[in-house]
Amino acid sequence: MAKASVKRNRIASEQLVLRTIYSTGQISRADIARATKLTPPTVSELVGKLLADGLIEEKGLAPSSSGRRGILLDVVDNSRQIIGIDLSREDFRGALTDLRGRTVHRVDLSLDGRDGEEALSLVYDLVNQLIASATKPILGIGIGAPGLIDPFDGILQQAVNLNWRYIPIRSLLYDRNNLPVYMANDCQLAALAEFTFGEDNGPQNDLPLVVIKLGWGVGAGIIVDGKLLHGSRVGTGEIGHVRVVDNGIQCACGNYGCLETVASIPAIMKQIKLSMNNDPNSSFHKFVKDQKELNTNIVVWALENGNNDMSKIIDGVGEALGIAASNLVGVLGSCHIMIHCSITCSYPLLIEKIRETLIQRTLPSLARATKLSSTSLGSDNVICGASALVLHHELAVL
Amino acid sequence: MAKASVKRNRIASEQLVLRTIYSTGQISRADIARATKLTPPTVSELVGKLLADGLIEEKGLAPSSSGRRGILLDVVDNSRQIIGIDLSREDFRGALTDLRGRTVHRVDLSLDGRDGEEALSLVYDLVNQLIASATKPILGIGIGAPGLIDPFDGILQQAVNLNWRYIPIRSLLYDRNNLPVYMANDCQLAALAEFTFGEDNGPQNDLPLVVIKLGWGVGAGIIVDGKLLHGSRVGTGEIGHVRVVDNGIQCACGNYGCLETVASIPAIMKQIKLSMNNDPNSSFHKFVKDQKELNTNIVVWALENGNNDMSKIIDGVGEALGIAASNLVGVLGSCHIMIHCSITCSYPLLIEKIRETLIQRTLPSLARATKLSSTSLGSDNVICGASALVLHHELAVL
Repeated sequence: MAKASVKRNRIASEQLVLRTIYSTGQISRADIARATKLTPPTVSELVGKLLADGLIEEKGLAPSSSGRRGILLDVVDNSRQIIGIDLSREDFRGALTDLRGRTVHRVDLSLDGRDGEEALSLVYDLVNQLIASATKPILGIGIGAPGLIDPFDGILQQAVNLNWRYIPIRSLLYDRNNLPVYMANDCQLAALAEFTFGEDNGPQNDLPLVVIKLGWGVGAGIIVDGKLLHGSRVGTGEIGHVRVVDNGIQCACGNYGCLETVASIPAIMKQIKLSMNNDPNSSFHKFVKDQKELNTNIVVWALENGNNDMSKIIDGVGEALGIAASNLVGVLGSCHIMIHCSITCSYPLLIEKIRETLIQRTLPSLARATKLSSTSLGSDNVICGASALVLHHELAVL
Repeated sequence: MAKASVKRNRIASEQLVLRTIYSTGQISRADIARATKLTPPTVSELVGKLLADGLIEEKGLAPSSSGRRGILLDVVDNSRQIIGIDLSREDFRGALTDLRGRTVHRVDLSLDGRDGEEALSLVYDLVNQLIASATKPILGIGIGAPGLIDPFDGILQQAVNLNWRYIPIRSLLYDRNNLPVYMANDCQLAALAEFTFGEDNGPQNDLPLVVIKLGWGVGAGIIVDGKLLHGSRVGTGEIGHVRVVDNGIQCACGNYGCLETVASIPAIMKQIKLSMNNDPNSSFHKFVKDQKELNTNIVVWALENGNNDMSKIIDGVGEALGIAASNLVGVLGSCHIMIHCSITCSYPLLIEKIRETLIQRTLPSLARATKLSSTSLGSDNVICGASALVLHHELAVL
């Protein structure tokens, strides 16, 4: 075997050992050898290297149930820190996480309507503040951003709301900080987070996992065979700009009736305003009078107060998402589709309507085998996913 | 390194050498070593084994342009034969192909309306006739069938038109013939064929490849990253049962307005009949009078004669396919979408309408980057794909 290939095997073996410890936890050298099919001497050598790197530690003896008692090894979760960034919200959010995606320290910087170069400066500030707060070596920077992203080149091709076009974020940040940088679309990272750190998924579940994220825009992140689906380099999961309403209203993309014109947060707020304009006696007016302003809390308030207009709007959102879900099932087959809404909304109402629509619009047996739920992770899901992306690329533990 | 892993490496290395020869053709041992990064002694050993198996042969000396002249090696295309079967048509078709998917011998057996057990017997007959005609060792049997297939277990879960449910085709055929059997949905094999043996695609093209196949039903085969996309085990690419027409007619699946109710061959014929019923002076009647019966040739005839009713029907088919295409682009990003119609139809007219619809119904930049064409392979495409499936699994050359 050529030298290059021996070296490749050694790196792959080291990653395999670390991955085994990461996924199993508390495991002896002998059990690692059994699990990986590597020889005990090879395992000992690689474990020694990982111990020296501080990535793993010895945790005492295994229970004495079976013969010779081995020393248990485990990953030192806080031996490294990861910077996870979420640029898909009205504030730019970042956090330092440990090797399990748990937030150690976080920074939120308000955009206050900034875009273009000013918004980019805010990203630099965010990263600087997080680097300054780090208490362990930083493994890398993961970024989730809205719009069309080329994850291979790390170029943000287009994010309409931020007025960004062709921003080489990876190289800009790498040049400033000399740390590895990985990026992907925010919806893809929401899906990666759910797959990696979520409650209800994981490698044992062989349905594709789809997270549909409702925020400023609407998009989907898709995991197939345990990996993020990148169909073409950019634009995978851009379901927000597929038409779901014939004769619908115009979207920022120029077309009419896109999913985003019905199911994004701005679209929902617009429908509330329209309903208020049409009906001066609408109970929505009461909320605005009490709260002094119209804000997204109106959605929960209205649903809690049994507001019919709000139920009708959520029904429309559910139907539009049901159309999107049927298209996803038509392409991928049965899936586990999770809905993530960046404001509090009534998931049971929404999911009931999605299921009703899905059953009517795609092969019934595939619709029935499709699982619908809300996401298990909260508003830090993109940050978690960004952290998982770095873990995947830098340590290959995922 | 453990023994198991050494053995795995040797098999992988042998496959790598064969794959290199298969894809390059006419290559010396020294160039194989350079291309594979294996050592020259390892290459010589593995080439010796492949020569002994008769899978490759020596083809004389390389041109003397560079130093020492090596002996050129190439795959013996007709050293093995593959059985490829297409069960998605009104006749059951099979062929013996060589290692490049070229047909050596073919058998067509007419279904004559048979289904259930009788149709299954016809599959046995087809395979028996092909085995009897083989002049070289048979590498395996590849099967493309309509409906819901579990490609991992080789079980046909449901094919409505054949009245088949949960037929374990792989094990049934394996037990009878003791040959490896692989199967997949016919649309997936049409896509695999186009990717493997088609004119216009291949690993250099990084867009996902989608073949939409219009026959008895409508479905899509999807290639991402050089591999068939299997989202869930069954049902990937079942776009034929996604609703494309609101208030449409009922489909065999029980739902309304499915793509199959507009764009399948039976649906097209139904629309022609409807048009004839509505208009006793329709020029369709002239065709039936001349030909003595209504058959699918009417489509070409009507298009050639500038029949407006036919253009309208094709326009509707194109619009429905455009909706399906926009859903595909929403999930996968920009693609290369190929249309394959099992009867002769006017592709330019169809594709023009698909593009027009696609641009209106999905993100314009992704629509513009999407390539639309007809397939390059003809009606043997599923057989070619079945052959490619066997090549992939048995020789790993693809």
